[in-house]
Amino acid sequence: VPTPPVSDATPVPAADVLVVTGDVVLVAAPPALLARLGAEAIGSFVLVLVGLGVALYTTLSGAGTLGVALAFGLALTAGMLAFGHVSGGHFNPAISLGSAIVGRLTWRDLVPYWLAQLVGAALAAAALYLTIPTALPTLVASGTETTTQQFFASTASGFDAHSPLSLLSTGQVTFGLLPALLIEVIAVAVLVGIFLAVTSHRAQRSLAPFAVGFSYAVLLLVAAPISNGALNPARASAAALFSGSGALGQLWVFWVAPLVGALIAGLAYRAFASEPTDDLADDFADEDEVELDQVTA
Amino acid sequence: VPTPPVSDATPVPAADVLVVTGDVVLVAAPPALLARLGAEAIGSFVLVLVGLGVALYTTLSGAGTLGVALAFGLALTAGMLAFGHVSGGHFNPAISLGSAIVGRLTWRDLVPYWLAQLVGAALAAAALYLTIPTALPTLVASGTETTTQQFFASTASGFDAHSPLSLLSTGQVTFGLLPALLIEVIAVAVLVGIFLAVTSHRAQRSLAPFAVGFSYAVLLLVAAPISNGALNPARASAAALFSGSGALGQLWVFWVAPLVGALIAGLAYRAFASEPTDDLADDFADEDEVELDQVTA
Amino acid sequence: VPTPPVSDATPVPAADVLVVTGDVVLVAAPPALLARLGAEAIGSFVLVLVGLGVALYTTLSGAGTLGVALAFGLALTAGMLAFGHVSGGHFNPAISLGSAIVGRLTWRDLVPYWLAQLVGAALAAAALYLTIPTALPTLVASGTETTTQQFFASTASGFDAHSPLSLLSTGQVTFGLLPALLIEVIAVAVLVGIFLAVTSHRAQRSLAPFAVGFSYAVLLLVAAPISNGALNPARASAAALFSGSGALGQLWVFWVAPLVGALIAGLAYRAFASEPTDDLADDFADEDEVELDQVTA
Amino acid sequence: VPTPPVSDATPVPAADVLVVTGDVVLVAAPPALLARLGAEAIGSFVLVLVGLGVALYTTLSGAGTLGVALAFGLALTAGMLAFGHVSGGHFNPAISLGSAIVGRLTWRDLVPYWLAQLVGAALAAAALYLTIPTALPTLVASGTETTTQQFFASTASGFDAHSPLSLLSTGQVTFGLLPALLIEVIAVAVLVGIFLAVTSHRAQRSLAPFAVGFSYAVLLLVAAPISNGALNPARASAAALFSGSGALGQLWVFWVAPLVGALIAGLAYRAFASEPTDDLADDFADEDEVELDQVTA
Repeated sequence: VPTPPVSDATPVPAADVLVVTGDVVLVAAPPALLARLGAEAIGSFVLVLVGLGVALYTTLSGAGTLGVALAFGLALTAGMLAFGHVSGGHFNPAISLGSAIVGRLTWRDLVPYWLAQLVGAALAAAALYLTIPTALPTLVASGTETTTQQFFASTASGFDAHSPLSLLSTGQVTFGLLPALLIEVIAVAVLVGIFLAVTSHRAQRSLAPFAVGFSYAVLLLVAAPISNGALNPARASAAALFSGSGALGQLWVFWVAPLVGALIAGLAYRAFASEPTDDLADDFADEDEVELDQVTA
Repeated sequence: VPTPPVSDATPVPAADVLVVTGDVVLVAAPPALLARLGAEAIGSFVLVLVGLGVALYTTLSGAGTLGVALAFGLALTAGMLAFGHVSGGHFNPAISLGSAIVGRLTWRDLVPYWLAQLVGAALAAAALYLTIPTALPTLVASGTETTTQQFFASTASGFDAHSPLSLLSTGQVTFGLLPALLIEVIAVAVLVGIFLAVTSHRAQRSLAPFAVGFSYAVLLLVAAPISNGALNPARASAAALFSGSGALGQLWVFWVAPLVGALIAGLAYRAFASEPTDDLADDFADEDEVELDQVTA
Repeated sequence: VPTPPVSDATPVPAADVLVVTGDVVLVAAPPALLARLGAEAIGSFVLVLVGLGVALYTTLSGAGTLGVALAFGLALTAGMLAFGHVSGGHFNPAISLGSAIVGRLTWRDLVPYWLAQLVGAALAAAALYLTIPTALPTLVASGTETTTQQFFASTASGFDAHSPLSLLSTGQVTFGLLPALLIEVIAVAVLVGIFLAVTSHRAQRSLAPFAVGFSYAVLLLVAAPISNGALNPARASAAALFSGSGALGQLWVFWVAPLVGALIAGLAYRAFASEPTDDLADDFADEDEVELDQVTA
Repeated sequence: VPTPPVSDATPVPAADVLVVTGDVVLVAAPPALLARLGAEAIGSFVLVLVGLGVALYTTLSGAGTLGVALAFGLALTAGMLAFGHVSGGHFNPAISLGSAIVGRLTWRDLVPYWLAQLVGAALAAAALYLTIPTALPTLVASGTETTTQQFFASTASGFDAHSPLSLLSTGQVTFGLLPALLIEVIAVAVLVGIFLAVTSHRAQRSLAPFAVGFSYAVLLLVAAPISNGALNPARASAAALFSGSGALGQLWVFWVAPLVGALIAGLAYRAFASEPTDDLADDFADEDEVELDQVTA
């Protein structure tokens, strides 16, 4: 068996060594960076358009927390199925960080990925902001004078006075910084861990979009009553951008906690689950889901 | 290696080169036009029967916006899985337009596809219309004399006085033409973009029905409170046909906006993601859905 | 290319010609009839346990029509995935009839299949009946003396005075026999049509459980407010058996209508979509989901 | 055809003979026990974090019984997709028992699997416990002094006075021991039966996570109003551990009943559906989902 020249640690996003036949080695040629950034921007746009869009008008539609969580999760599954083969289908700075830690994304590409995700997410939030009728916020607030920005803030993540519980209990009880940090760190560690495990060579990678989308939906359902559930700094930033100073002032939590979660998941994956090169033997059996170029062994 | 005689640009919907063994080349014969039109009509019938059916009686079933959106989306997934291999599984004039723009449907077939979709959708709406008990509309309207047509109009898409918000706020606030156009253009552009990307050679095409169905469901969930969510001119037309002059008068929006959205998605796809003919080589390996190039070592 | 000796019209349920390599032809050996009947009984047991179980206690759980429909649909998907390779995964006399019409089930096996489905469904309903606390029916009826049988009748399908709308409107409006027949015929024709299309050689058969389960869920969601949605004579019979004379007296409708629907779908499929033997050529490319015996050509 | 040296009865969890080419036999090397225990612990952690997390705050989020059931089920699907290839994806002592009975897990590994599942589940419950704000329990109980432990007890499974119905009916009616035992035995037997059937050689094993997750969700939906639905002794134990003496005193039921259910399913599967070694012939056609080592025949 010829030694495959590319190991799993090689930082190509959606691309890997796939088939070794005789002495012909097929090596993945990753799509160009610009194409990958475009895919990340579009996927993040879709995710935020859908998730924040459903959250924004949930009082009108009655979609509820379950509807919002399913919307985010199913949009993520759809986006990964459609664009994952181009960019890896992160649409989330925490997942990109985890991918970089385990060597599936070059460190050089990390910040461009983050910027693309932020741009896509922010554009989606802006489009939603434009749809809000001027008179709606005050009507929804039962006549209390309310700005469009205050109305949009119902989509933002937060704690203390900005926790959803605070509104629900008219300030009597809230979730503080610690539970918000705790749930955001743990949930993102789980999300990134599932992403890394299910996109590994050993798993059914073609079904990864279901694992990642479903887990995003249900983890959001856990985090929603505590901090309004972000688990994605791009989504948190897009909401905060149009929600005024309260949300912006707490935004750091929704960057620090998910990145810490991604760090934990990435390091744990590297320590316990990184793929030894001799595992590549099963690429014989595994002819799915990626794009190849052929290269001389 | 024999040159495959069919390129991706060839406008055959669900058909491709399949297997090349030795020097026998099996080429997909696309189903006959009549079969494809039948599949489009049946799929559109199923989509509208389910989606409008759930919407029509949601006050009785309590299915809600979430139930209606899931019904449309899961019906689309099921329809694409069942009939997609015959016709491509559009069931939506906007998706057919997008497919024509990127060369996957001949322009000659576009209008027949549209007609088949309209016929299927209208038959489904007619069947639903027939199930309405005469006394129900007035009962649901709490005693206010209401015609069957007015009752059916709750399934129609609209803006201003016909926006769902107008009813909800007893006319105090509505979504106007601009937000309705904006959300319909953007959501259809996203839907068509996902359709084109996930049915491309490079993606996991066998899972396309999930991506398209899931994204249709969640995009409807966003659009529902604004315009009652069509994202499909055939569905909008079928509802309007039995809903009286109000819905018919606004129907143009639910043709123009989705077709503009499809145009944007189709042109963007052609510009950035069109498939080079040499990619077709991987149809060899692709018993399912992946891309290879073969090169001598 | 050797001519495959078994055509699609051969009445083996989950089995088909699969691979032709050199001059070795692998032919499917269908599981023994007893195993297939066992699988049908177990699958029908699961379907009815779950669907009726959720419906029975929906006032306690708040699952609602959406919960009941999703329960039936997801149970069907799971059952088909688990037991479909044994028996074809019908769990529904209407689907078995449709399969017999298109030649995928021998006519000789049809009645045994029906009996197995009925036994499984009835056992599940009996188990659920045993869980009902004596005092619960009267409590749920707000103190009105109610028997266990009357309580169970909320799971039965019906029209006129037994339509769910009749209860909802305290008898002011009901759905009569005609809308109940209409929706049951159409919805079952759609369900059986989707089943036949998605389990054909040309479709992605491994994903059939999703198409069938999803469409069952959403069609139930349409039929629920009209007739409490059966779309399956075994499910209707199991519910009626423990629901007293009212449900039993209307049971014939929930046999006649679905069987007529299956007849329409089966004949239409035979007329327009039956598979010519030369289509078997693509079995080359299609190496999934079934059991093989090896046979010399 | 060389005789494959490993039969289905060999107790390797996620590993099987896969490909026999010429005279080279590729045999699955199961991951090391520690890796498998890690995967079981992580998967159980995810399952309980999500399911109990949604249940704990359902009064705040409005997720409801449907939301809790979907959360458990989709988390299980995601966990199996991500970690199933390592450990078999049980995350449930009952499933491990069933697997041991049919010879897919060595008896020696059974207790370690149980311990790993318990540790993962308990850690998740502890993390959730830490997020509860001190003042919340009393607020949710409308001012009645309530401890954090009493608040957590809403996630525990129980009967009689601890049945959810008891709370709902303020003690007027409850589900007793017998219905709780009955539903827990039957539902777990179904769950384990589906697990064993769908992970067998003959089924589409790559789709097993959907069958198992979907059936877990809908069976929970049935059991929820009766006993608050465990169907998993690790989940029941984790909830009981933080819920005080009432839940702990009834915990034995949620061990005995599921283990009896697993026993029934395992023995039935062995009797009627065990795989003859000659079935391994279809491993030719089945090149997915597992890890290989190469071995000379």
